[in-house]
Amino acid sequence: MTEGASTPSYPLSSRNRVKRLHERGFYDHETVHRILDASMMCHVSYVIDGQPYCTPTFFWREGTKLYWHGSSASRMLRNQTEGERVCLTVAHLDSLVLARCGFNHSADYRAVMAFGSAYLVTDAEEKQRAVVAMVDRFFPDRTATLRPSNTQEIKATSFIAMEIEEASAKVRSKGVADDAEDYELPIYAERIPVRTVLGAPEPCSRLLDGVTRPATLDGYSEGRLLGDALRDAYFAEYPAG
Amino acid sequence: MTEGASTPSYPLSSRNRVKRLHERGFYDHETVHRILDASMMCHVSYVIDGQPYCTPTFFWREGTKLYWHGSSASRMLRNQTEGERVCLTVAHLDSLVLARCGFNHSADYRAVMAFGSAYLVTDAEEKQRAVVAMVDRFFPDRTATLRPSNTQEIKATSFIAMEIEEASAKVRSKGVADDAEDYELPIYAERIPVRTVLGAPEPCSRLLDGVTRPATLDGYSEGRLLGDALRDAYFAEYPAG
Repeated sequence: MTEGASTPSYPLSSRNRVKRLHERGFYDHETVHRILDASMMCHVSYVIDGQPYCTPTFFWREGTKLYWHGSSASRMLRNQTEGERVCLTVAHLDSLVLARCGFNHSADYRAVMAFGSAYLVTDAEEKQRAVVAMVDRFFPDRTATLRPSNTQEIKATSFIAMEIEEASAKVRSKGVADDAEDYELPIYAERIPVRTVLGAPEPCSRLLDGVTRPATLDGYSEGRLLGDALRDAYFAEYPAG
Repeated sequence: MTEGASTPSYPLSSRNRVKRLHERGFYDHETVHRILDASMMCHVSYVIDGQPYCTPTFFWREGTKLYWHGSSASRMLRNQTEGERVCLTVAHLDSLVLARCGFNHSADYRAVMAFGSAYLVTDAEEKQRAVVAMVDRFFPDRTATLRPSNTQEIKATSFIAMEIEEASAKVRSKGVADDAEDYELPIYAERIPVRTVLGAPEPCSRLLDGVTRPATLDGYSEGRLLGDALRDAYFAEYPAG
């Protein structure tokens, strides 16, 4: 995990400042973006009539902007011209931590909370770019090999975008950390690593004869960490980071 | 995935009804609880001064009630006597789905959104139960083997609870599903399974001589699905489900 001295950082505010265990907080683009880019799924929070919703959805990053599908979230934007406040969160669980007392039980994790104002993507050029990126950000150059999206499909889909105004990363990666005197106790403690990995790809049973897996998918191989595959795909599509 | 005919269901409302692709929606306790119990981490959404927050945190279920640590979420409850509206979401990613056109790219997943009013656990008996459950729900009977929690630790920790008023599960598990005519195209399509698995447990390097791993942790073995280990632990601690 970088300390962020060499990269730009997101500004601090009362919203994104990590208050509890602040030594776990990072605000630099590098740390924030690496955590985001290792995930395909995020959770987006928004408010409708005072009720908060937390919707899991697929998303991707383009610079300091985040994009996701509209679906139910688009309810909140349908009649909006101004942006609605949103919080988009990504969390990776890296281990379970079993300590010598209850309150030191914990987990290693990497998480990002990103804040901003969401808007419906209505600009035709931006929407067309999103139609491509929603596939190619995960599977580089794949769109060019697909049956092209038709007008009806594009019309039926809404994309939401958000410029990241503030963001914070929170990272714990120290395994067991007990109170000094508790190490003298005859109690078992351990760290159990947790990994999200890819299984063996399952080709569609209805492939036409002679259709084989393109080399662009080589990064998605059995046993690989999903986060590594997604990060490599990101850089293949956006070499500038 | 059960169809829920034999178990009670959560009531339907405009909040929890699955609107988009409603054939993916389930409301029965059995389906909702199995998805919740396969996770240690959830995302909780709440509102402070109109700004939604989406906080990843550890949680557990007790019947139709959900519990989690307070930390930053307790900000919203500090001066509240009435409950604050909350949405708690759990999502499992089961596969990446690469289809023959962009808009049929998808993923298999299991997700639950649960709605209710959160309250700070202040009742001493309920708080004491939470202190035990936050460990034993994941690692059965472990609390009895630990250095007991002291008054200061308990005082410094806030627990939030929520009775599930409404909940919905959304499940996709069909892999590649293309438009009928697209199957005639010479385009590669596949499903890539995604699994969250346990690594080899790493005993604390400072264990006292003769301290060994208790048999109650046997369910947390290398290569096992995290969701299976968590589900088994749940039933070991709460045999009634």
